Amino acid sequence: MRDVAIVGIGQTPVREHWDKGVRDLAVEAVLDAMADAHIERADALYVGNMLSGKLSGQEHLGALIADYAGLEGIEAVKVEAACGSAAATLRQAVLAVQSGAVNIAIAVGVEKLTEMTSGCTTNALAMASDGDYEAEMGLSFVAINALLMQRYMYEYGVDKDDFAAFTINAHANAAHNPNAMFRNRITREQYANAKMIASPINLLDSSPIADGAAAVVIMPADMAFDFSDKPLRVAACEVATDTIALDNRANPLWLRGVECSARKAYRKAGITPEQVRVFEVHDAFSIMAALSLEASGFAEPGTAVRLANEGEITREGRIPIATFGGLKGRGHPVGATGIYQVVEAALQLRGEAPEALQVDDVEYAMAQNIGGSGATVVTTILERLERK
Amino acid sequence: MRDVAIVGIGQTPVREHWDKGVRDLAVEAVLDAMADAHIERADALYVGNMLSGKLSGQEHLGALIADYAGLEGIEAVKVEAACGSAAATLRQAVLAVQSGAVNIAIAVGVEKLTEMTSGCTTNALAMASDGDYEAEMGLSFVAINALLMQRYMYEYGVDKDDFAAFTINAHANAAHNPNAMFRNRITREQYANAKMIASPINLLDSSPIADGAAAVVIMPADMAFDFSDKPLRVAACEVATDTIALDNRANPLWLRGVECSARKAYRKAGITPEQVRVFEVHDAFSIMAALSLEASGFAEPGTAVRLANEGEITREGRIPIATFGGLKGRGHPVGATGIYQVVEAALQLRGEAPEALQVDDVEYAMAQNIGGSGATVVTTILERLERK
Repeated sequence: MRDVAIVGIGQTPVREHWDKGVRDLAVEAVLDAMADAHIERADALYVGNMLSGKLSGQEHLGALIADYAGLEGIEAVKVEAACGSAAATLRQAVLAVQSGAVNIAIAVGVEKLTEMTSGCTTNALAMASDGDYEAEMGLSFVAINALLMQRYMYEYGVDKDDFAAFTINAHANAAHNPNAMFRNRITREQYANAKMIASPINLLDSSPIADGAAAVVIMPADMAFDFSDKPLRVAACEVATDTIALDNRANPLWLRGVECSARKAYRKAGITPEQVRVFEVHDAFSIMAALSLEASGFAEPGTAVRLANEGEITREGRIPIATFGGLKGRGHPVGATGIYQVVEAALQLRGEAPEALQVDDVEYAMAQNIGGSGATVVTTILERLERK
Repeated sequence: MRDVAIVGIGQTPVREHWDKGVRDLAVEAVLDAMADAHIERADALYVGNMLSGKLSGQEHLGALIADYAGLEGIEAVKVEAACGSAAATLRQAVLAVQSGAVNIAIAVGVEKLTEMTSGCTTNALAMASDGDYEAEMGLSFVAINALLMQRYMYEYGVDKDDFAAFTINAHANAAHNPNAMFRNRITREQYANAKMIASPINLLDSSPIADGAAAVVIMPADMAFDFSDKPLRVAACEVATDTIALDNRANPLWLRGVECSARKAYRKAGITPEQVRVFEVHDAFSIMAALSLEASGFAEPGTAVRLANEGEITREGRIPIATFGGLKGRGHPVGATGIYQVVEAALQLRGEAPEALQVDDVEYAMAQNIGGSGATVVTTILERLERK
């Protein structure tokens, strides 16, 4: 199996892009990544997206984006795994390059939620859960996370207000990220007074849905230095699943999909969690950040909120998370998020993060993208590629 | 790159399955294929589907089907390329096995169009075309094909009634396929009197949408004889795209995506079109069968209808097509179709087709699955795996 490297990255700002459609955003990110990699053609295009069919009346994004990005004729396909779509797309691109069938592959994640032509976002996002046994019963996606958060507080005796640390860190970082949706800092007081959405989840526990696209160009590692001065080795990109419905899990507070995906990734990369210096976590809700830290091996069960309150998730801490703002601060353009995370991990390793965000001595950076309430998990570990 | 073999196949009947949902159909086909391969676990599951989000309110089919097929924890993802979704899914599974990251992979295509919870099928299928520049202008999918057929008749001086040969062959074969939707034979007279849908396309030019699922189990060729007495080598599974909108093509009657995908497949398999003995063609409309035969190298431009009328597409002819009924006779469960085609090609090579359908001396069987009006094309070539 050949080694794979990231040689180009691209992203659009995360915003309500009222003047751009799904194809415009995806093409922008693709061309940005291609320019960064100094390429004009590729062999295959993988497009990650969840909701274009439901909300924009457009499927078949593989051929569409290939066509509009000037990549006519190229192999192209769409990959979907709910909110984990983007990283699942990267995984397919990595496998294609590893197989030897494809040399240069582009993986782009895109989501367009502003200006829906049909449906509503709450219904649409519920399609990540079990349609017959969760959504149909009226359990929205935020409600699923509220059940988890309530249970966490009960089981571990954690105060609701202590979850503020995740939001404060995310917004503090997003303030320095020009592509972030939210640039405002949040105080404990603001968090405590935030509007309740689905008790105990309030507005400031919740990441904003948004429009955006992010892309990476990958190729065999032995070609990488011809295209980039700072290529990054994909040390691991590993997928695992769990039951789709929460009620089928023996312990809903233990994200088995996260554990399995992270373990596979550590084994593949040949590292331990202690060697991870940046963790782009899937903080769709604060509770997801806490549960992911625990199941990924960064905190014992029930201790992630304390870890956050001890400052260990900030740039100076033991395991900096959401270093560009995370889903909460940068925003959560659903089917694009996983590749935003990878692009941000790449910027950290390339030493190209804004000064206030750059983490020191990053040897391994990890990004974890989750679909549903932990049903699909993709963990990616990057390191700098060494010149041979 | 390691050789990949099909060791198990499964399918549900193509019907209006009023008593089964998308998960039931997919699980049925997966378990059928797993039983045929004598396996109880796999390493990865690839699910092809186009319309479950739009019509059934369910995305995230990778995790869902893995969960309900008893494959908990497995790597799983959905792949979409409009009506080409199923074969595009097989392509991803093949790449995964070729890469060495995955040993046993299952590719399942599934579609459930009966009992929609939202939307309508004509709108939903239009998502395969260019939403902004075709569908939004009122150009339905059948209308796109009607434009092609009209142009074909004009350019090549072909009579409308001569297209009957495709339908007659498809239904004649479907009559012997227990899994086919239509088991009735069609006469030239019935074709001539069939209800017009979008002139010149009549009801008997049009494949029926339907519910169904089909699956294959693949693994490295060097493991295959441990699981199957009749493993089949995936000699090629190649994807190409064309512009998504018809009006961007220099010559709309030449399916460049088909040409490119077929050429890649012939090169990969090391064969010429003359060596293909069975061709499972994407006859969503009769005109698509004609254009595919031409761009795949089985007939000169403008001559495919004559080829059909000379009997060359029947079991006794030069290039038997739709040998189990094709999309027209077996039915077109959109995101499942491409794997039905591959399963049927496999049955021909295994010598397990019903007696009336079995083609003699099949060395290479080809299946071609198309998304949109030729925008995504996946060509798969199978041959018997030789014991070493």
